[in-house]
Amino acid sequence: MALSVRDERITMKYGAGGRAMRSLIQEIFHDGLVTDDAPGEITLRAMDDGAALRLGSRWLVLTTDSHVVHPLFFPGGDIGRLAISGTVNDLAMMGATDVLALTCAVIIEEGFSRDDLSRIQRSMRLACEQAGARIVTGDTKVMGKGEIDGIVINTTGVALTDRVVPDSALGDGDRLIVTGTIGDHGMAVMAKRLGLAIEGTLESDVTPINALVRSALDAVPGAIVAMKDPTRGGVASALHEMAEKSGVGIIVDELALPVTDAVRATCELLGIDPLHVANEGKAVLGVRPDAVDAVLSALHHHPLGASAAVIGACTTARPGSIILDTGFGRRLLAEPEGEPLPRIC
Amino acid sequence: MALSVRDERITMKYGAGGRAMRSLIQEIFHDGLVTDDAPGEITLRAMDDGAALRLGSRWLVLTTDSHVVHPLFFPGGDIGRLAISGTVNDLAMMGATDVLALTCAVIIEEGFSRDDLSRIQRSMRLACEQAGARIVTGDTKVMGKGEIDGIVINTTGVALTDRVVPDSALGDGDRLIVTGTIGDHGMAVMAKRLGLAIEGTLESDVTPINALVRSALDAVPGAIVAMKDPTRGGVASALHEMAEKSGVGIIVDELALPVTDAVRATCELLGIDPLHVANEGKAVLGVRPDAVDAVLSALHHHPLGASAAVIGACTTARPGSIILDTGFGRRLLAEPEGEPLPRIC
Repeated sequence: MALSVRDERITMKYGAGGRAMRSLIQEIFHDGLVTDDAPGEITLRAMDDGAALRLGSRWLVLTTDSHVVHPLFFPGGDIGRLAISGTVNDLAMMGATDVLALTCAVIIEEGFSRDDLSRIQRSMRLACEQAGARIVTGDTKVMGKGEIDGIVINTTGVALTDRVVPDSALGDGDRLIVTGTIGDHGMAVMAKRLGLAIEGTLESDVTPINALVRSALDAVPGAIVAMKDPTRGGVASALHEMAEKSGVGIIVDELALPVTDAVRATCELLGIDPLHVANEGKAVLGVRPDAVDAVLSALHHHPLGASAAVIGACTTARPGSIILDTGFGRRLLAEPEGEPLPRIC
Repeated sequence: MALSVRDERITMKYGAGGRAMRSLIQEIFHDGLVTDDAPGEITLRAMDDGAALRLGSRWLVLTTDSHVVHPLFFPGGDIGRLAISGTVNDLAMMGATDVLALTCAVIIEEGFSRDDLSRIQRSMRLACEQAGARIVTGDTKVMGKGEIDGIVINTTGVALTDRVVPDSALGDGDRLIVTGTIGDHGMAVMAKRLGLAIEGTLESDVTPINALVRSALDAVPGAIVAMKDPTRGGVASALHEMAEKSGVGIIVDELALPVTDAVRATCELLGIDPLHVANEGKAVLGVRPDAVDAVLSALHHHPLGASAAVIGACTTARPGSIILDTGFGRRLLAEPEGEPLPRIC
């Protein structure tokens, strides 16, 4: 995967979760820093949501994320809630739904309001309680006025699991489930940023979903073969990455996609496809066909999974392609170079 | 530990590694996020270099650090080398000298040079090799031009150890060893920033010292009772923190402090005490008196420990105080509110 044009300088598209970003990561981290992996390990090479290392008879799962969202406070959440949810959910996407520990490193701009810092801290605490997680160590840096825009928060998570779920094991006939409505986070942030007045409730979905994922995994052991959280780049990017790595095509039933009226209205206003918009409390699950009903039922029984839906199926035809069935016909769903919105998470 | 004046906004001193920063961390993270610890665990409550969690019969050690150094490239190192060394050394300071894995999250400013990014990546790779460490997962974010100054890098480290060394177990008569010359990193960065032309070689000491620490720990098992790396705030801050947590006083023999001529000259020029200047490849070790010679000998046999020296001893008199014996008399060594230099690491 090479960049079509090799830019001499980093531009916004490289941070947007799409193809350009994966190329940059590949070039900078993968090519330079990848080491030999032990059998079964997931490391940088896999470019998954995190890493999985053998530890005795179990797996130690590790994931890290820097959060740079702008604005810091948005309908439905803030950067603190995002920092906890993002990392907890990345662990969950590897099959590790019991969080062993989180670390938290904050970089603060000189002049930042102490009240806002306290508000963010309270939000992190609440999200930790909801996830059953705790922060065990941290780091604080202050940069000068104008050297950083407000605050950024890095969280790294560790967890143990008996079974790792990769993002690359989809097979012919497997079904794709999305655990709830799509596009809520990205549209809430964008509406806030643009000062849009939208009818209805437009709120970020940012929340830890490890308990929801655990109930889905427990429904039929072994039936969920791949997972990914559709954050930057939205469901489209997640599906593209899963399809490419698994060597399958995915046919998506557009009419089955759960989208709220408020998100749909905002997307239409701005000319953006909800499939390309970030989520922060959703998962895309690849499920063996005979277990789909049981997994869907388990999701529906959890408060965070009420809108879960089967949105597509895998095919060995056209490996790596995402085919959108619109109800009127089929077309290829392109993967954007990057998410339309910078600093979404 | 309360702030004497409760600032409504965060100022640079809160990021400088001294008393002000510890108060902020205490207020924001400790008070809000500390959870009940299991017996023997080290978590946020301890405000140590990292956390230690029981994992079967061993300890899982975790540490995180964001690196914001300015300039990115300085004599003796760069932000990449710093990001690896800083986290490897924090693990080592807990007694965990075999690194299980590192995570790496970079935030890049739009327009950042790709060549510089590659140079930083090569530097990280070299430091990883020297530390016997590997990066297993990462994250990349891009912020807009002017939203972040160049690049910041967070690294989080995990390691297993059989014995955790805290920073708080100094007792009466224990000796303090510093593993080499002090002040090199801070003065190299400052000289570069100010464009000073200094006689002699002024180079940062930034390097992973886990192998050096391992050889010291192995010299006399159990003899090293406390460790701290004197980064922000320098040896003075490290000693203050160790003394305060251990409930002892420390008498420092100023003439025994190893300082290069170049660092001494720069410090005199700028009116800064080398004890207050950051290091990135040194450790302060608290050692049982009967093992001092053996530990010192082990350090001297390692290339990175050639200048190691005994610099002081603990006393039960005046707990929490650092007493500087200048050779002409004794005076109290104050802990500065913060390091004199922002963005040093």
